[in-house]
Amino acid sequence: MDAMRAITIPEPGGPEALVLADVPTPEPGPGEVRIRVVAAGVNRADVMQRRGFYPPPPGASPYPGLEVSGVVDALGAGVTQWSAGDQVCALLTGGGYAENVIAPAAQCLPIPTGVSVTDAAALPEVACTVWSNVFMTANLTAGEVLLVHGGSSGIGTMAIQLGREAGARVAVTASSRTKLDVCRDLGAEILIDYRTEDFVERVRAATNGHGADVILDNMGAKYLARNLDALALDGRLVVIGLQGGVSAELNLSLLLSKRAAVHATSLRSRPLTQKAAIVAAVREHVWPLLEAGRLRPVIHAAYPLARAAEAHQEMEASGHIGKLLLHP
Amino acid sequence: MDAMRAITIPEPGGPEALVLADVPTPEPGPGEVRIRVVAAGVNRADVMQRRGFYPPPPGASPYPGLEVSGVVDALGAGVTQWSAGDQVCALLTGGGYAENVIAPAAQCLPIPTGVSVTDAAALPEVACTVWSNVFMTANLTAGEVLLVHGGSSGIGTMAIQLGREAGARVAVTASSRTKLDVCRDLGAEILIDYRTEDFVERVRAATNGHGADVILDNMGAKYLARNLDALALDGRLVVIGLQGGVSAELNLSLLLSKRAAVHATSLRSRPLTQKAAIVAAVREHVWPLLEAGRLRPVIHAAYPLARAAEAHQEMEASGHIGKLLLHP
Repeated sequence: MDAMRAITIPEPGGPEALVLADVPTPEPGPGEVRIRVVAAGVNRADVMQRRGFYPPPPGASPYPGLEVSGVVDALGAGVTQWSAGDQVCALLTGGGYAENVIAPAAQCLPIPTGVSVTDAAALPEVACTVWSNVFMTANLTAGEVLLVHGGSSGIGTMAIQLGREAGARVAVTASSRTKLDVCRDLGAEILIDYRTEDFVERVRAATNGHGADVILDNMGAKYLARNLDALALDGRLVVIGLQGGVSAELNLSLLLSKRAAVHATSLRSRPLTQKAAIVAAVREHVWPLLEAGRLRPVIHAAYPLARAAEAHQEMEASGHIGKLLLHP
Repeated sequence: MDAMRAITIPEPGGPEALVLADVPTPEPGPGEVRIRVVAAGVNRADVMQRRGFYPPPPGASPYPGLEVSGVVDALGAGVTQWSAGDQVCALLTGGGYAENVIAPAAQCLPIPTGVSVTDAAALPEVACTVWSNVFMTANLTAGEVLLVHGGSSGIGTMAIQLGREAGARVAVTASSRTKLDVCRDLGAEILIDYRTEDFVERVRAATNGHGADVILDNMGAKYLARNLDALALDGRLVVIGLQGGVSAELNLSLLLSKRAAVHATSLRSRPLTQKAAIVAAVREHVWPLLEAGRLRPVIHAAYPLARAAEAHQEMEASGHIGKLLLHP
């Protein structure tokens, strides 16, 4: 069996738990392709997995990495939409921190015209996460107010741009003026430094008391009550991260008086049929905007695969703006 | 100015707070009709209003009553879809406990063929509440599992029938075998006596561990954690009543792992545009089922208007099955 290099996690722990090792090159099963990886995106879920809090779902690669770009180099049975040599980027259930990775054919996307193969590794997770949550789940529409927590994260930078393109007014929270400046350049209008400002007051003041129609939240429990305070009538809160804890009091009377909703989702656990539907919607709605030059991946830095630990240290320090990539 | 008889609430309180009085007959404004009332539906919101906990929204009649049937007897400016003499039923923001009431023309519906004018007073609130929440908000689809708390209430009896017609499996909770027998006859399949059984275990056991895709809840805080336990992956909890309290701990980690949503809504507070859209959808989707004899209003008893207090006592005792009506 052929061998390849991959980042493995022999034991959960700090960044040093990421160990480069020789492992067998995976073979694609029916409906899957193998991708020779050009670049892999780093996600906060990878950090959780490294720390032992986010085990790979059944059937997934044991190695970290939820998105890559690269070149198709082997096809499983029944794959007709891709050929060997095609340049693609892909949403994975794991294994992206490697020289080769298996992806379901339905979770691959072409490299958008005008985006480099390398940079395209920054797209699948953020485009699928933002499109599925902000548009498919929360139905953001033109003229509405979108509040994005963590506006300078990879997901935040895509949410700002897609919100702007949808004709929404975009509010963001971030931890520094530098980060907020980037958010402004991407199209955010209401810029909130959460270290010194109350986002509920700021969003209300900037919207004549209306509030946020949609909130994309990565904080969970810590922000639940304040997010509900910040919601407009008929507002939708979508929780996609629990960085501020998992459990909090919910005021159902306030939720009811606002006719509001609290959604919580994760992309990785979705069954293939849902992921395929999301990828198809992203290709239909997001890819044309990338190809027209109206959206761009925001990339902070790239590291060689062997230095994945440094990328994790940088993500945990939260000083980055946009995505971190790895190059095998 | 003409006078009419109406139930008024000079001071909030017990059933005796409902006082029959002579008041001015209201005049329809632009886009409104006046209805000579044949029957009025009694709703739990009316009891809340009587007790002083649910004040009428701005612009609404100060008198209780959220739905009526009757005959159009005056038209405001710009009303073209109704004529004097038309028999209608209507969703109101208040004032239904009276000989005459004003309704927006867009909130009136024709009397379905095969339903008496009197019985049609039992339809607007339950049909609009169930359709908007179970179908427009929660998107119940064929093959899914719908759990209805309070299955023998007016809303419950309509939710069971509409769930069955949509091809869903319907589970209900109620407090007696008599009530559960009625639910079964209406199409409920999983019958849970909440006094003696755990609905989470029963729903799981009856669905091979799948759980409920949609839950229609009137209990609020008291059931929040258990409703979340009972939800299936991608499940939707819709809270439309807070009879079990207003605030409770929400486990966002469980919500996220199920990719679930908590919605809370009320019909009365919705703006006219939303109510008009709901009424139009009910006319399109629910009225044909009534006219085909596939649905029926479930009516427990009717009282003369002067005895509205007795109807409230009966509702508060919770012994009824289906709707209570008043006749001016």
